[in-house]
Amino acid sequence: MIDEKLKWMLGKLPEWMNGEFTNKDDIVISSRVRLARNIKGFLFPSVASPEELVRLYYRIEDTLRSLKAIHGMRIYPAWELDELGRKFFVERHLASIDLFKKKEGSGVVIDESEKVSIMINEEDHLRIQCIYEDFKVEEAFIKLMEIDDEIGSMLNYAYKDTLGFITSCPTNIGTGFRVSALLHIPALFVSGKIEEILKETISSGIMVRGYYGEGTEVRGNIFQFSTSQTLGRSEEDIVQEFKTKIYDIAHNEKEARKELIEKNHTFIEDKVYRAYGILKNARMLSSLEVMELTSHLRLGISLGIIKEINYSTLNEIMLFQQPAHLQFKFGRTLKQEERDYLRSLFVRRKLTESGI
Amino acid sequence: MIDEKLKWMLGKLPEWMNGEFTNKDDIVISSRVRLARNIKGFLFPSVASPEELVRLYYRIEDTLRSLKAIHGMRIYPAWELDELGRKFFVERHLASIDLFKKKEGSGVVIDESEKVSIMINEEDHLRIQCIYEDFKVEEAFIKLMEIDDEIGSMLNYAYKDTLGFITSCPTNIGTGFRVSALLHIPALFVSGKIEEILKETISSGIMVRGYYGEGTEVRGNIFQFSTSQTLGRSEEDIVQEFKTKIYDIAHNEKEARKELIEKNHTFIEDKVYRAYGILKNARMLSSLEVMELTSHLRLGISLGIIKEINYSTLNEIMLFQQPAHLQFKFGRTLKQEERDYLRSLFVRRKLTESGI
Repeated sequence: MIDEKLKWMLGKLPEWMNGEFTNKDDIVISSRVRLARNIKGFLFPSVASPEELVRLYYRIEDTLRSLKAIHGMRIYPAWELDELGRKFFVERHLASIDLFKKKEGSGVVIDESEKVSIMINEEDHLRIQCIYEDFKVEEAFIKLMEIDDEIGSMLNYAYKDTLGFITSCPTNIGTGFRVSALLHIPALFVSGKIEEILKETISSGIMVRGYYGEGTEVRGNIFQFSTSQTLGRSEEDIVQEFKTKIYDIAHNEKEARKELIEKNHTFIEDKVYRAYGILKNARMLSSLEVMELTSHLRLGISLGIIKEINYSTLNEIMLFQQPAHLQFKFGRTLKQEERDYLRSLFVRRKLTESGI
Repeated sequence: MIDEKLKWMLGKLPEWMNGEFTNKDDIVISSRVRLARNIKGFLFPSVASPEELVRLYYRIEDTLRSLKAIHGMRIYPAWELDELGRKFFVERHLASIDLFKKKEGSGVVIDESEKVSIMINEEDHLRIQCIYEDFKVEEAFIKLMEIDDEIGSMLNYAYKDTLGFITSCPTNIGTGFRVSALLHIPALFVSGKIEEILKETISSGIMVRGYYGEGTEVRGNIFQFSTSQTLGRSEEDIVQEFKTKIYDIAHNEKEARKELIEKNHTFIEDKVYRAYGILKNARMLSSLEVMELTSHLRLGISLGIIKEINYSTLNEIMLFQQPAHLQFKFGRTLKQEERDYLRSLFVRRKLTESGI
């Protein structure tokens, strides 16, 4: 039941989750840029016949194989993955839930570091994403452009001079470009300031989504913020404007943390240590609860309350406690009750290993 | 602010809370018997003038001083105690909240072991109680009779051949006798069976009260069960009938525990370890929360889930975490926030001392 082809990913974290954050405040967890591209002469995946999709899939796959910009490339046709394997990709932020709704003729291509992933025949023929740790949105953008240039030189992109790149959904027409970032903003949440911040953010044209992107819920106080419109503006402008707005939110979070530690020290210390106490002792933990509690621990590290745990340990817990990862880790399909028990076992061991 | 006269009680537990329980299931925590007595020729405290109460108080106090049945007697006139001192007595189950509502002319007499306490001018002129650990209701009863006989030989009790002993409240007329027991029944609570059990218990003539007796709330799944009617039956009959009913409840609790450990092992293990994790790590604990969590730990000990903590440690935590005890322990009046913090410090230290 564990897909042999996925085993190489089991022992490691995606590069954007690995290592300590350069961003010491641990607010911006990761930055992601993506492009939507379509191939001239083919119908959009939503309307194409299965046969046409499969034909296009192999054509794209063939082209991507020769890409120089992607190191240690792996290709995963969706129909070769079982339910658990597909969830595994979603949990790693390498593919969307939507990709796997239509299995025939779709797939995902990733690089060794998991910074690059290309979805074939999701909403568009190609969705190219680069995800980098921290707020390294420019680096991600440079990599994305490199890949796009190379693919564009081999495949005939659907493009109109008056509009730009043609996409399945009108909101992506133009550059087909979107920037997003995962932000960990527990202090805004705990202090109750989150609502106002979200209202402002949304009205300024930034979209707010959950941990796994569109249509998913927020987990562990981690929000995905992303740009919306792409028409009529350059990618560089979009990146710069987005950075300014994200800096604003991060600044508000920083202020809220300062206030918490200065004015509500015992309150926040209590929250952090309770989270630790439960994670270290519970015998049943849901995925959602682990996300909430690691969020408090994460806040505790950034405030200097807890020093024995590092972000890498928390990232590993966050990643491998997810249902598909957990089942891969324990080598078999697990019922929910069993999962909750083994999740607690895994979390307990990880914290014990880190010496706390 | 700490009453010097109370300091001798600070370093110790009342005897009924001390030592390991002979009752290995830790269901019946303590058994209490009490008598209501009044002195012929004096009005009930509720209608007597303050001057009359004071006059009677001294008369009773003088008599009690010579009692041979009470070892290491201490006498505490209510008006010599401050607010904190009065709460201290209530927290130790040595006096009722009602005793201290009328301070002039009332007081409490206790023995060294704190098994015996006599309230002067509470609802009746005399309320004599014996509280023993475990289900030692017969031993408590023998002690109570010994004290009553001795007092009765020195003071002229209000008594009528047709009715028995005259008391302020009609429900006490007759023997003036009541038996009660503190029962720790967490499994009935956790399994949701408590409601049915309580309904049955009440309809069988047993009253259900909170941790501090009449008019107080249940804390930490500890219920006080007590007899109601006293008229027309002997004390021995009342004791025997009470024992049968309490055994029934204890039996139900035992069955519920067995079921929990057999059918919901992970669920109950989780509850127990979470309680431990929070008690060991929280930085703010309310008195109510400590009672709830120690209840789960207590259940964990009785089910063999936790072996490193003994009941004495839990009893000490339960007693000294109470607001007045905590303030005495830390030597000063504390605001609620400070109290919650220092309570968590105290609990943490106690658990660390016990090596867990």
